[in-house]
Amino acid sequence: MSKDEKKSKVEARAPRGLADREAAELAATGRMLDVIRAVYELYGFEALETPAIEYTDALGKFLPDQDRPNEGVFSFQDDDEQWLSLRYDLTAPLARFVAQNYDRLPKPYRSYRCGHVYRNEKPGPGRFRQFMQFDADTVGSASPAADAEICMMAADALERLGIARGDYVIKINSRKVLDGVMQAIGLAGDENAGRRLVVLRAIDKLDRLGPDGVRQLLGEGRKDESGDFTKGAGLSLQAIDTIMSFSLGGQYRDGAPAFDLFGLLGKSEIGAQGAEELLEIEDLARDAGFGPDRIRIDPSVVRGLEYYTGPVFEADLTFETRDEKGHPVRFGSVGGGGRYDGLVGRFRPDNTPATGFSIGVSRLFAALKLVGSPIVAARPHVGPVVVLVLDRDRLADYQRMVAQLRGAGVAAELYLGAAGMKAQMKYADRRNSPLVIIQGSDEKAKGEVQIKDLVAGAKAAAAIATNEEWKAARPAQISVAESALVEEVAKALAGQKEPG
Amino acid sequence: MSKDEKKSKVEARAPRGLADREAAELAATGRMLDVIRAVYELYGFEALETPAIEYTDALGKFLPDQDRPNEGVFSFQDDDEQWLSLRYDLTAPLARFVAQNYDRLPKPYRSYRCGHVYRNEKPGPGRFRQFMQFDADTVGSASPAADAEICMMAADALERLGIARGDYVIKINSRKVLDGVMQAIGLAGDENAGRRLVVLRAIDKLDRLGPDGVRQLLGEGRKDESGDFTKGAGLSLQAIDTIMSFSLGGQYRDGAPAFDLFGLLGKSEIGAQGAEELLEIEDLARDAGFGPDRIRIDPSVVRGLEYYTGPVFEADLTFETRDEKGHPVRFGSVGGGGRYDGLVGRFRPDNTPATGFSIGVSRLFAALKLVGSPIVAARPHVGPVVVLVLDRDRLADYQRMVAQLRGAGVAAELYLGAAGMKAQMKYADRRNSPLVIIQGSDEKAKGEVQIKDLVAGAKAAAAIATNEEWKAARPAQISVAESALVEEVAKALAGQKEPG
Repeated sequence: MSKDEKKSKVEARAPRGLADREAAELAATGRMLDVIRAVYELYGFEALETPAIEYTDALGKFLPDQDRPNEGVFSFQDDDEQWLSLRYDLTAPLARFVAQNYDRLPKPYRSYRCGHVYRNEKPGPGRFRQFMQFDADTVGSASPAADAEICMMAADALERLGIARGDYVIKINSRKVLDGVMQAIGLAGDENAGRRLVVLRAIDKLDRLGPDGVRQLLGEGRKDESGDFTKGAGLSLQAIDTIMSFSLGGQYRDGAPAFDLFGLLGKSEIGAQGAEELLEIEDLARDAGFGPDRIRIDPSVVRGLEYYTGPVFEADLTFETRDEKGHPVRFGSVGGGGRYDGLVGRFRPDNTPATGFSIGVSRLFAALKLVGSPIVAARPHVGPVVVLVLDRDRLADYQRMVAQLRGAGVAAELYLGAAGMKAQMKYADRRNSPLVIIQGSDEKAKGEVQIKDLVAGAKAAAAIATNEEWKAARPAQISVAESALVEEVAKALAGQKEPG
Repeated sequence: MSKDEKKSKVEARAPRGLADREAAELAATGRMLDVIRAVYELYGFEALETPAIEYTDALGKFLPDQDRPNEGVFSFQDDDEQWLSLRYDLTAPLARFVAQNYDRLPKPYRSYRCGHVYRNEKPGPGRFRQFMQFDADTVGSASPAADAEICMMAADALERLGIARGDYVIKINSRKVLDGVMQAIGLAGDENAGRRLVVLRAIDKLDRLGPDGVRQLLGEGRKDESGDFTKGAGLSLQAIDTIMSFSLGGQYRDGAPAFDLFGLLGKSEIGAQGAEELLEIEDLARDAGFGPDRIRIDPSVVRGLEYYTGPVFEADLTFETRDEKGHPVRFGSVGGGGRYDGLVGRFRPDNTPATGFSIGVSRLFAALKLVGSPIVAARPHVGPVVVLVLDRDRLADYQRMVAQLRGAGVAAELYLGAAGMKAQMKYADRRNSPLVIIQGSDEKAKGEVQIKDLVAGAKAAAAIATNEEWKAARPAQISVAESALVEEVAKALAGQKEPG
C-alpha cells in the first residue's frame, strides 16, 4: 500500500465517550437489568419505552450543572426547521408521554424505563456521552407514600443485586427544606435564583471537597488543584455557618440534632412543610420495615437537576474503593431522584404530581463487580463446537456435521477461514470451544471422526505429572463412528460438566 | 387557565416517525428477540453492541435509494467541529469495530447485534425514523460457506419463530451476476455507474410494480398514480428484453432455465464467477438439508445497499396479507443482507471479506402477529394486588400490608391516588389486578381484612344466571384474619390459576 493509499483510509475509531460492549459484559449487564425489572414489577411498575429523539422544546432545559442552556444536549434540525434533541435523561420524555396519553393511562401511573441517554459533554474516566439509565416513576400521586415506595424499591433492588445491608443507604432530603434554609439566610426571591443554584451546587460537593472546600465555594470562591478559580456565592460568614450547620449536623429525628433545625425552618412555611413531608416518608418506610440503616434523612443531599420540587433521593454506596489516584474513597452515588411536580404541567393545564428514581446502570455495574456480586460475575463462556476443515473439497461433508449438531441443539460452527490445522486449533481455543471435530482422509476412509476434548485436554496437560491414570480414563481425543457423532459429542459435553 | 397560559404550554407530542412502546408489546418483542438470539448462538455467533453515534466519515454514505449523499442521516457537529451521525444501520459500525479491534478478535469473527437505527426520512405507515434491526455477520471469511451459513441461520430463525415452512423463502442472488448482465448489455465501466444504479433499482421494484412498470423504468420512464414522473434508464428494447428475461426467467438450476443464462454470463468473467458462487452456496445448503423450499436462487433479488459486492440475500414471506388499500399482497421482505467485502477495507490495508444478514424487527413482529405465532401472542397480563386506602390516616397500616405481600413475592401496590372507593376499584380493574385488599374501620375493629377476587368476581358475574352454586362455592369476596393475609392471598391467587 502506497503512502497515498494509507492516507486515504478512514481512521477506525469510535468518537470519545462512546463505548463498544462485548458478549460477556452484555450478558452480565442483562442479568443485572433482569433483577431490577423483577423487583420493580413486584412493586407494580410496568415497562415503557420512548424514542431516543424528542422535540427540543418537549425536553426542556433541565440538565444538571449547565449554566448555558442547551449546552450538553445533542441537537439538530428537522426538515421542517423544528429542533430535535437526543434525550439526556428518561424523565423529560416520560412527562411528554404521560401528557400525550393522559386520558387512557391509569392514574397514578407507575412505569419503569431502561434505555440509553446522551450528553454532549466532555467525556472522562467513567464519564460517557452515551450511557444507560434505569428509571422508575409514579405519575399522578402527590402522596409522600409514593416517594416512600420509590425509596423502598431502590433499597430492595440494591439488596437483591448483592449489595449487603449496611453497604448502602437511600438518603432523602427535600428541596422545600433547602428553600427554607435559603429563606432563613435571606436568599429568597427570583432575584436570588442564580445565587441559590451556586449554593446548592456547593452543598452537593460536600462529599468530594470536604467542609473547607464547600465553605470557600459559599464565600469568595475556590482555587482547585489545577489552579482554576471557581467564583463563590459571596455569602456572609453567618450565612455560611448556618448552611454548614444544616448540611453537616441538621438531623431531623434519628439521633440528637446538632443544632436547632426546626427553629431555623420555623421562619419558613415552605421549609416546615418540606420537613413534615420528609418525616412522613420516614414514618412510612419504618412502618414497612425499612430502618435508618436503609433509608434515612440526610440534609447534605441536593441532586443537581433543577426540576425537583420536593423530596430528593440518593442511593449511596458506603463501602470503600479507590479513586483514580489510588486514594481510598467511599463508592458514592449509583442513582438518585426526587419529586418533580411541575414537569408534566409544562404540557397540561393541571400540575400533575410525579416522583421517580434513576439508576446509573454502568456505575451500578461497576459497584456490583467491586462487591463480587454473583449476578455480574463472569460466567465460564462455553463456545461452539468447531468442525475443522482439513480437506477443502469436502466442505459439504463438514457442513453436514455442523448441521447435525445444531439440529440436536449443540452450538456448532464450521471453520470458515483459510488457515491450516494448527491455526484452526488456535482459533477453536480463542472461541472457548469445548470440542473440535476432525475428519481427515484417513478417518473418512474408516467412516470415523475424531472428537478432541479441549477442556479435558487442558486439564490433562495440567495434571499429567501427578495423575496420569486420569488421562487414561478420560482421553482428550477419541475416534468414533461418523454415524454416532451427535451422540458422542453429547456424551463428551456432559462429561465436561461433571466435576473433574 | 387563561388563553395566554394555554398558549405558553408546550405541545406534548413525539416527532413524526418516532413511536412509544408499552409493556405488552415490549414483552412480546423481547420473547421474539430471545428466540433469534438462541438460534444465532447455536450457530456460534456472539453478542456485540456499538454506540448509536459514530463519526460521519466512519459510517460512510451507503444508504439505499438516496441519490444525494448524507440525505437520510441525522448528523451534527462535535465541539471539535468533527461531524457525528446517528447510525443508519448496524453494518457500517461493525466494520468500524472490527477494524479498530482487528488483532485481538478471532477470525473469522461471528457477531450478532440488536439495536435501534435512525433514518432522517419522510415517515409513513410502518415506516419509522427510529427502528430496531437484528443483524448477524461473519467478518474475515471469503468462503461461500459463510454466506450459506447466514442463509441457513435466517431460515432456522424464521421457523423457530413460528413461520411455517412454505410460508417463507430465503432468496439469493449475486451482485456479480447482476454486473455480468450489465456487461452483457453494454453498461460496464465507471461512466455507466449511475445508469447501473437506475437499472438495479428498477429490478428491485419488480414485486411492487410488475413487469410493465419495470420495463418503463428501464426505458424512457414511468408516471405513477399520483402523476409524478420518474426518469428511466433509457435502455434499448433489446437490453430491456435481456434484463427482463434474466429477472423473470433466469433460473440457475432448479427447474428448466427460461433462457440461456450461462450463455449470457459466459461473456462476463465476473458474471460467471458470481454464478459459480451462487451454485456453491446452494450446494452447501442442500447438503445441510435445506431444500429449494427454504433457500433458493432468485435473479430478481437486488437489495438496495450500494456496498454489496457478491451474494445478496432476502428473507421473503410468501403468505398473503392486505396492503393499505385492502388489496391482497404477499407479505414480502422481513430482512436481507449480502456480502460486503469492501466495507472493513475502508479502514484497513487489506480487503477483509464479510457477509451478513439484517432483520427488520418491527416488520418481522408484524408478520408473526399475522401468522398467529404463539411467541408474540398477547399473554394475559396479571397486574399487582392493590391495597385500597379507605382511611387516609392509616396509610402506614396499608403500606405494611403491601410490604408483607411483596416480601412473599406477590406483586402488590398501595393505591396512591386521592380518589374514593369506587374510583379505586376502577383503578384496580384498569391495572388488571387479580385481587384487591380492603380494610375499613369495621374490619380493623374485628382484626380482619377483605380479599376481593376480581377474576372470580368477573367470572361469577358472567355465570350467575346459569350457575349460581358455583358462585357460592368460590365467593368473590372473603373476610380473613389480618394475620393470615399473605397466606390467604397466596391461596386466592393459586385458585385463579386453576381452570375455572
